[in-house]
Amino acid sequence: MRGSRRGRTKAVAHAPAHDYRNITNTMPRREVFSADEVAHIHATALRILQELGIKVLLPEGREVFARAGARVEDDMVFLDAAMVEEHVAKAPAHFTMEGREPNRNLHVGGNTIQFGAGAGCPNISDHKRGRRPGTLADFIETVKLQHSFDIMCKLVPCIEPQDIPVHLRHLDVMEQQLTLSDKSIFMYARGREQTEDSFECIRLAKGLTEDEFANAAHCFTVINTNSPRQLDRPMTQGIIDFARFGQPSVITPFCLAGAMAPITTAGALTLSHAEALAGITLSQIVRPGTPVVYGAFSSNVDMKSGAPVFGTPEHLKANFGAGQLARHVNLPWRSAAGTAANLADSQAAGETMNALWGTILSGANFVYHAAGWLEGGLVFGYEKFIADTEMLQMIARAMGHVDASDDAIGFDNIASVEPGGHFFAAPQTMERYASEFYQPIVHDWSNFGQWSEAGAKPNADRAHDVAMQAIKDFEAPHMDHARREALADFCARRRSEGGAPLMD
Amino acid sequence: MRGSRRGRTKAVAHAPAHDYRNITNTMPRREVFSADEVAHIHATALRILQELGIKVLLPEGREVFARAGARVEDDMVFLDAAMVEEHVAKAPAHFTMEGREPNRNLHVGGNTIQFGAGAGCPNISDHKRGRRPGTLADFIETVKLQHSFDIMCKLVPCIEPQDIPVHLRHLDVMEQQLTLSDKSIFMYARGREQTEDSFECIRLAKGLTEDEFANAAHCFTVINTNSPRQLDRPMTQGIIDFARFGQPSVITPFCLAGAMAPITTAGALTLSHAEALAGITLSQIVRPGTPVVYGAFSSNVDMKSGAPVFGTPEHLKANFGAGQLARHVNLPWRSAAGTAANLADSQAAGETMNALWGTILSGANFVYHAAGWLEGGLVFGYEKFIADTEMLQMIARAMGHVDASDDAIGFDNIASVEPGGHFFAAPQTMERYASEFYQPIVHDWSNFGQWSEAGAKPNADRAHDVAMQAIKDFEAPHMDHARREALADFCARRRSEGGAPLMD
Repeated sequence: MRGSRRGRTKAVAHAPAHDYRNITNTMPRREVFSADEVAHIHATALRILQELGIKVLLPEGREVFARAGARVEDDMVFLDAAMVEEHVAKAPAHFTMEGREPNRNLHVGGNTIQFGAGAGCPNISDHKRGRRPGTLADFIETVKLQHSFDIMCKLVPCIEPQDIPVHLRHLDVMEQQLTLSDKSIFMYARGREQTEDSFECIRLAKGLTEDEFANAAHCFTVINTNSPRQLDRPMTQGIIDFARFGQPSVITPFCLAGAMAPITTAGALTLSHAEALAGITLSQIVRPGTPVVYGAFSSNVDMKSGAPVFGTPEHLKANFGAGQLARHVNLPWRSAAGTAANLADSQAAGETMNALWGTILSGANFVYHAAGWLEGGLVFGYEKFIADTEMLQMIARAMGHVDASDDAIGFDNIASVEPGGHFFAAPQTMERYASEFYQPIVHDWSNFGQWSEAGAKPNADRAHDVAMQAIKDFEAPHMDHARREALADFCARRRSEGGAPLMD
Repeated sequence: MRGSRRGRTKAVAHAPAHDYRNITNTMPRREVFSADEVAHIHATALRILQELGIKVLLPEGREVFARAGARVEDDMVFLDAAMVEEHVAKAPAHFTMEGREPNRNLHVGGNTIQFGAGAGCPNISDHKRGRRPGTLADFIETVKLQHSFDIMCKLVPCIEPQDIPVHLRHLDVMEQQLTLSDKSIFMYARGREQTEDSFECIRLAKGLTEDEFANAAHCFTVINTNSPRQLDRPMTQGIIDFARFGQPSVITPFCLAGAMAPITTAGALTLSHAEALAGITLSQIVRPGTPVVYGAFSSNVDMKSGAPVFGTPEHLKANFGAGQLARHVNLPWRSAAGTAANLADSQAAGETMNALWGTILSGANFVYHAAGWLEGGLVFGYEKFIADTEMLQMIARAMGHVDASDDAIGFDNIASVEPGGHFFAAPQTMERYASEFYQPIVHDWSNFGQWSEAGAKPNADRAHDVAMQAIKDFEAPHMDHARREALADFCARRRSEGGAPLMD
C-alpha cells in the first residue's frame, strides 16, 4: 500500500514510495482573531480559572493543585493567573514521540502534522458484515488497517473490543498493538493500575529500563474534560500518571458550542482554553517540562437534536481560533476531523474533508478522527477508512515542494512540441511518467463505459475490497523474540492476577 | 432555499438568510514559488511567446496582432516581451459584473470569490431519469437550479441542449437564461453572428442602449486555448468580439500536465501562463482597458488512460502556482474544481472538495465546475449539484467573521452554568439559537436509528429530492414586460431569419 497502488498497474510499479511518516504542513494558517483578541480570550480564560474555578473530582488532583498554591474549596479549584502562566510556560513547544523502531519516531509540534484514524468508536461497520458492537477480532483488523498505511502516523483505538471484560481489555489491546505494529500508541487513562500495566507493556516490548521509558515519549492519552469546568476522576488521575512517567497527555476539552459550551465560537473557545490550561497546569505541576499537547475539539451541535456535528462553518471557525490560542501558549496542538453522517457517502466525505482542511489551516499537529469515523464517533467504518486514507495521502502530497528549476520548467521540452500537439511522448514526460503523479489506492479514474463494464461500483464498494485486501496482505513488522515473549508473559500473568479495575 | 432549510424545521424559520452574493475569501494563500521563481516562470513564458510563438488560426487575429507590432510568419505569431507586458498592464485588476438587477452585481477581483456550477457538459444525469444527452428542457431545469441558490453567483451553461440545432441554440439558451434568472451569464463564443445575437439579447432584456451595454460587463465567455501554443478560429474571434463590446473574456488554457502540457507542474504552468498572456494581449490590443480574466485550468492526466483527473496533489499544486502568476500580472483569475468520478459518491465529494480548497487557497476569483460536475465534465448531475451546493454554502460561511467581543465571549454567560452542566438554556444560547449555526439543505444529522427509520437514504438520494423540490418551487424573478417582449420578438425574428452559423 504505502502510496502505490499494489498490483493494479504495471506502469507505476517502480514509482518510489512517498514518505508519509513526517509531514510538514506547508499550508498557510487562517487567523480569525487579531493578536489583541487572542490575548483577551486568553486573559478571560485565566479569569475563569481564577474567579469561577474548575471542579476536580479526584481528591489527589485537588491535593496536587493545592500543594502548588491553588485555592481549593470543597471540590472546586481556583487557579491564580500567574500560576497558570508559569506552569504552562514549562511545557515543551515540541518533542519526539518514539515508535518501536526509530523510523517510526515522530516530531511533534512546529509545522508538523500527523493524522490518526477515527478513535473510540463503540461500533464497527463494513458493507459485508454490517454494523455491530466492536470485538477484539475487529480491533485486530483495525490495527492491521492502520499499520498498512503510513499516513496513519500512530495507532489509535479505533473501536472498543466489547467482548473483552473491562478489567482485562487494556492488556489485550496493548499486546495486540505492540505485536502487530511498531507505531506509537494512543492509550486510555482509565485508572492507575491499567495505566501502569500499559506502560509496562510498552517498556517490555521495547526492551527499555524504567528510566529509559520515562525519559522519552512512547505513547499518549487523550484527556477529555467534562465541560464545562470539570475534571473527572480517571481523567485527573490520567494527567497525573502520564506526567509522572513522562508520557504526553493530550488535554482536549470537548466544548460543543450550544451544548457543553457557549453557543458562540469565541465563548466556546474561551471555555475550552480555560479547561485546557487547567489540565496542562496539572501536568506541569506533577513533572515540570513533561510533554503535553494542547487539545481543542470544539464544534457545534444540531440545535434540533443536540447531537454534535462536524465540518460545519462553526467547526472550522473554532479550529481556526483554537490554533491561534495553541500558538499563543506555544504548544503542539491536537484537533480532529469528523462527520455526523450515517454512512460513507458524499455527506460523510464532504463534512470530513471540510473539517480536515479546517484542521490543516489551523496548523494542528495531531489530527484525529481523520479516517473511518462515522456517526459522530459511534461507528468506525472500513469503507470510510479507505476513502479517507486516499484523501489524506493526496493532501499530504499536495503539501510537497513544487520544483521550479529550469529542468522542471523545461523550455526545450516545451519547444519540442508543435502547436496543437501533445506531450505524451515528450522527453520530460518519458523521464518522469512513472513517478510524477499520485497513484490512487481506491479512486477509479476510468471512463463511464469502462467503469460501468467493471460493475459500476461506487467508491465505498471498491474501498471495501481495498480494506479486505490490506487485512489479507498484512504482515506484522519484525519484533525481537525475547521482547515479544516478555510482553506475552507479562500480559498472561496480569490476566491470571485478575487484570486491573476500571476507575469510575 | 438561499441558506435556510425551507420547510424542514420550524426552529430556524426566522433565521436571517446568509448573503452568498459577494463573498470575500478570507482564507490565506498557499504560495509554492518564491518571488524569484514567479518572475522566472513569467520571463520564460514571455520567452516562449517571443521565440517559439503561438499559432493563430484566424487571419483576422493575426492581422490584429500584426498591426500592434507582432511578427507574423504564416500562421505563427511572435510577441515581443515588452509588447506583451505593456498590453497586459492595461487590463483592470478588478471590475464589476452587472446582473439584470443591481443586487446581482458582482465585484470581480481582489479577495472576492465567486462559485459557478459545472459547465459545458454534453450529458445530464439524475437518479430517476438516468444519464442522457442534454436537451433544452434539461437546460431550463439547470437554470432553475442555479437561480435557486445564491451561492451560484452567475449562470453557466451546465449542459448542451442537443435537441436544438446549433444555429438556433444560442437564441434559446439566452432567452431562457435572461427570463428565468437575473444573474449575469456565461455565454459561448462560437462565431461573430451568434455572439452579436447574444449581446443583443442581453441589451434588450436589460433595456440598455448600445453604449450603455458596451460600457459595463454583463456577461463573459471562457476562451480555452488549444494547448500547446494555439488559438483556434472561434476562440480568437471570441476574444476580439468580447473586447470590442467591452465584455470580459476568461482566457483559460486547459494545460493538462502530461498531455497537452509538460508533465511537471512548473512546466505546465509556464506554458499555461504564456498562452493566457497571449490571449490577454489580444484583448487589450482590441480595446485597451477592457475587462479580462486570467484563467488557468491545469491539472494532470491519469497516465494509464490519458484522461484528466481533478482534486489530485498535482491539481492543487498547479492551482497554488497559477494564483501566484495571476497576482504577478495583477489580474482577476479563474480556476475550477472538478472530479473524474462517475457518480456522486465519496470519490466525487473527496476530489471536488480537495480541488475546491485548492482554488480557495489559490485566491481564485471565479471557481467553476464547483457544483454538479462529474466524469471530468461529461455529465452534469443533479444530486452532485445539491451535495456540492451544501458544501459551498458551508465554506462561504466558514469565511465569515468570528466575533470576539465581550458580548460574544460572554463571561457572565459562562459563569451562569455550573461545572458539568450544559448551555442549552443559557441566556446567550436562548438569544442566538435560531441564527448562530448553519442549517443544512441536504445533510442529515439525525442519529442512526432515526435515519434508518426514515429509509436509510444516502446523501445523494436526499439531494435528488432537494433538487426536484427546488425546481418545483422555482419562481422566476420579476422582469419588465416590455423588455421581455422585446427579447422574445428579437429571438423569434432571428429564428425566422435562420439563426446564426456556428464557426468551425
